[in-house]
Order: sequence, then structure tokens, then C-alpha cells
Amino acid sequence: MVPEIAPPEIEHSVRLTADAVLILDRRKLPLEREWVRCETVAEVAQAIKDMVTQSSGPYFAALYGMVLAARAGEDLEAAGRLLVETRRTNNHLHKAVHCVLSTSDRSVAGVLAAAEAGDELYRARSRALATAAAELLPDGARVLTHCWADIYLIELVVALRKAHKEFSFVCTETRPYLQGARLTAPTLAEMGVDTTLVTDGMGAALIADGRVDALVTAADRVTMDGHVINKVGTLGLAAAAQAFGVPFHALVQAPDQDAPSAAAVPIEYRDGTDVLSFHVSGVRGLYPAFDVTPPRLVTTVVTDRGAFAPTALSKYYEVHEYYEEGERNQ
Amino acid sequence: MVPEIAPPEIEHSVRLTADAVLILDRRKLPLEREWVRCETVAEVAQAIKDMVTQSSGPYFAALYGMVLAARAGEDLEAAGRLLVETRRTNNHLHKAVHCVLSTSDRSVAGVLAAAEAGDELYRARSRALATAAAELLPDGARVLTHCWADIYLIELVVALRKAHKEFSFVCTETRPYLQGARLTAPTLAEMGVDTTLVTDGMGAALIADGRVDALVTAADRVTMDGHVINKVGTLGLAAAAQAFGVPFHALVQAPDQDAPSAAAVPIEYRDGTDVLSFHVSGVRGLYPAFDVTPPRLVTTVVTDRGAFAPTALSKYYEVHEYYEEGERNQ
Repeated sequence: MVPEIAPPEIEHSVRLTADAVLILDRRKLPLEREWVRCETVAEVAQAIKDMVTQSSGPYFAALYGMVLAARAGEDLEAAGRLLVETRRTNNHLHKAVHCVLSTSDRSVAGVLAAAEAGDELYRARSRALATAAAELLPDGARVLTHCWADIYLIELVVALRKAHKEFSFVCTETRPYLQGARLTAPTLAEMGVDTTLVTDGMGAALIADGRVDALVTAADRVTMDGHVINKVGTLGLAAAAQAFGVPFHALVQAPDQDAPSAAAVPIEYRDGTDVLSFHVSGVRGLYPAFDVTPPRLVTTVVTDRGAFAPTALSKYYEVHEYYEEGERNQ
Repeated sequence: MVPEIAPPEIEHSVRLTADAVLILDRRKLPLEREWVRCETVAEVAQAIKDMVTQSSGPYFAALYGMVLAARAGEDLEAAGRLLVETRRTNNHLHKAVHCVLSTSDRSVAGVLAAAEAGDELYRARSRALATAAAELLPDGARVLTHCWADIYLIELVVALRKAHKEFSFVCTETRPYLQGARLTAPTLAEMGVDTTLVTDGMGAALIADGRVDALVTAADRVTMDGHVINKVGTLGLAAAAQAFGVPFHALVQAPDQDAPSAAAVPIEYRDGTDVLSFHVSGVRGLYPAFDVTPPRLVTTVVTDRGAFAPTALSKYYEVHEYYEEGERNQ
């Protein structure tokens, strides 16, 4: 039995209308559901810069921002540069702009078709990796996740239900932005999933206590030798999972051929004052935004082409089941 | 050169006056410095129950609460039961009451002398373990700590300075009560220590990044086979420390002879709604207050009788350098 549950609102958090792009304001979730209305590609760029949306959001915003530029008769190359420059470390923007610019038909209809194809491609790849991840999880799986796996997470829930598996989730709150508490837990609850919220320091205790069957997170990037770069906090959970024999499955559409190992990936240190959420004087805050989990602490890297051992990621590029070309730029 | 820095206010956070016990309200630190005034042992018991003070605070509050009872001519056995029953899982209360009740002189002067001896004993043992811990740390040590090690931490800073060692601290904020952000970081800053605050998920990233020379935490209890019970979050840091070859030194006055292994120590699960610090609906919060770090993830247990391997804790009871008797009840 697959329960009929409407998809969560955040699954389509960027929407193209006749005259604008609407972006769900993730900064205000879950307390408020506000949509930011952008009538030009410049307004879309500003919204991305202002962190109105994050994770996969900028990808969809950039796709449809390009449609606004085409409708306004703007130079598409310039519009693309404007979008890519909003957040230099977000590879999604480059992918979205590349997707539109690589179409030969630069008419409004052509750009719209390319944007819609880019939209569907992202969702299809997410469904593919979610199906592979669902196969790795036992029936009744108690899954620990960290931060916000976005469409991967939503598709994983759908895939687990299609596979007729029971499951529950534990989410870490993911300080300082609280993506786990603000996005992951409410989205799972909206989808009718049994969901528990814990603070970031509690995951290891639950793992050790036998309350977790698998650690499953998205990955911002996975290097070719199996290092998983993801929201800071992933590493401590992965170390605890290994220490107590619990598998860690990292979800990513594809490993990054431009990153042979972790040395190729600079880790962003954000403003340390974000950590000082109330008045603490005489100390500095430090805010590494991501961490790197070495392959020895990773069980599986789950991609849109299936599951791979972290030491065998080059096999991803030997499989051409779904897509024929263009992986380096996807 | 040992800089002359006044001890932090929290080092003496319970004070006996001519007619009351004053307890520094740790719930309001560091934003406010309020002292709760207790004129009777019943008021002291209520303050302990209300979480006005925690960590070593209830120990000192119970010592001087017994003095108030003696001054009022109350039954000391009943006063002791009242205090012990306020927080059943806090072993400190039992120790403090036992310390006073084991004196043969039940006069006000006798009870006061016993309370003061109990006070000094706690500080002497803390100094002893801090001296042993300071010896384990290299000059220039970058120490990661979790939660609030209280007088152990203060004495460790003093011992490192006496040993003419340079050092700096990174503190985890320790959600949900934020003891690291509210107590540890401000106390270290007050003592002039170079202090950095991070969220609970970031410790592992700093360890992996080579920014930490040792993980040092207090322990609420250490079992005889080397399991360290401490504020939840310790375990994940310990697993990360081991994964990257960083030592974990746990500070405790003495291993617990009543706990042969972790199975003897029930872990308190506090109200899960404490995790839901803002409105999250449809999910439950879960709040294991402590975690258990197994001996294979512990480098050293540092006690008032020196440093021991976690697998050799029975040696603690073969050493009688400082105290001759009564360990089982201390």
C-alpha cells in the first residue's frame, strides 16, 4: 500500500508564471510561507544572493531566470554570467545556466524548453539515486539524516513507499541555520513520515544505542576517491556510524570528475559570528560550513546510476545507462 | 610567567552568608548575574530542583544547605533526604550530604566545619586531576572541550599556566541548554584564555582539519571498564578524535566502583520538547541528556590520582596518595 500523500510544497519551490518567477522564501520556513516575486533576471539574481533559496533552489531559480531574460529580449550570455556570479561556490548555478545556453534555439520557446528539460533532468536523476538508496535500506529502516537533502530526500521517501518499505527518520537540527529543524523535519512531517528531531550532538548517542539502521545524507560534492563533502556535522556522525557498525550512504547525482581528492575542494568558512546567536563576548565564533568525510568512513555513494563503493567511483563514468554525454558539465 | 588573573566569578557560585545561602543563577548566565537567596534548607532544595545551579553547584549548595538546617535546629537526616531527593540522578548531592552527616559533631560549628572540609576536598581533588591533565597536554595545546567542565576546567587553566604552557580552547555550544556557549566560553574568556565557539556539529571537522591537539571533557561518571558517561555529544567527538588520531582525555575525580560497566548506568532521556526550540509540528523531539563513550574511543581517564588508561581503572583504587578511605561514598 502506497499512501496517497500530496507532495510537500517545497518540492516545487521555484515557479514560473506568465510574468515572473516565484521563489519560496526558505529563510522564513517553517513559520511563514512567503513567495518572493522576481520579474527580471536581475531580481532572480538578487534573490539568490540574498539566500532566499538554497540547496537545489538556486538551480531552478537560475533555469527560470534565464526564461525571464529571454522574454525580456536580454542578452542570455550576460544573464547567465549575472546568475553564476551570485554564489560562486554553488555549482548548481553553473549547471543551470549551461543547460539553457547549450540549446541552439535561443527563442523564448527554445529557452523555456531547455529550462523545463533542465528541471526534469534534475528530478529524474534525483529519482534514480533515490531508488538506488531505497534498495540499500532494510524494511523498517530507522534513518538518521543531517541537514537538508532536499529533492533527494523527498524522492527517497517516495521510493521507499513504492518499495513498500516501512521507515522512520531522525533529523539533526543542523546549527547554526537549523536546516534540519526548519526544512527536513517539517517536510518529512508534511509527507506523513514518522520524524524525530535531535540536536547535532545527539546523533552519535542514538547510533551507539542501536536506534539507527543507516546514516543517509546528501553530499554537496563527492571526490573521485570517495571523500564526501557535505554540511558540517556529517563527519562526526560518519565517524560514530563506523565506530558502531552502522552504514553511511551518501547521496549525490554524480561524483565530481574535477575533484580527484579532497585537496581539490576548498572548504568555505562562513562568518563566525553566525555561531554567536546570543551575546557572548571575548570569544570568537568559527563556522566551517562543510566538512570532508574520508572514504574509510563512507559505506556507499548512491548516485543516479546506482550505488558505488567510495573506492570505486570511477565506475560511475563507465555506466551510461541514463545519459550519454555532458556529465562533466552537469 | 603566570599572568595574574582573578578567578572567574563562577568558581565560587554558592556562598554561605550569616543568614542565607546565595546561589548564582546559572540559567541566566552569561547575560545576567543574579544570585538566588535561600534562607532555609527547603529553599536550597527548591533552588536545586529548579535547576538554578548544575554541575558541581548542587554539591556546594547541599553542603551549605545542611549548615542552614543546623543553624535552624532542624533534623539533619531529614534535611539530607530532602536535598538528595531533589535530583535523583545527581550523585553530587549524595556525596555532599554524606560528607556532613558522617561528622560526629552535629553542632552548628561541627556541621560548618564538615561542610567547609567537603568544599575544600572537592577543590583539592579537582586541582589534583587538573595538574595530571595539564601534564598530558603539549605546550601550545589547542584543546577541544564539550559542555561545561566546571571547576575541573577552571583548575585546568590554572594548572596549564603554572606549568608555563601556552594553550587555547575551542568550545562546542552544547545544545539544547548551550552550556558551552553560556558557561564554558564566557568563563574561559573571563580567565583571559584564547577561546573559540563552534556548534556541536563542527568539532569533528576541526579535528580532521588538524586544528585540535586533544579532546578534553569532564565526565559525569566513568565506569570501571572505562566507559565515559558525559553530556550527549561527547561520543561523536570521541569517535572523530579516534578516527583522526587525536587523544581524548576524560576528567573525573574517581572512576565509579558501583558501575562495573555501562550497563549499570541508566541514561536519562529528558523532555524532547526541549529540542524543539521554535515551532516545529508533526515531529517529536528526543533528548538523550548523556552519552556513553566506550573505552576503545577513550585515550586517558584523568583523575585526582593521576592519569589512567581506560582499561586499567582498577589501579585508581590501588593508589592511596591523597585519601585514605571512603572513596566508595565520595
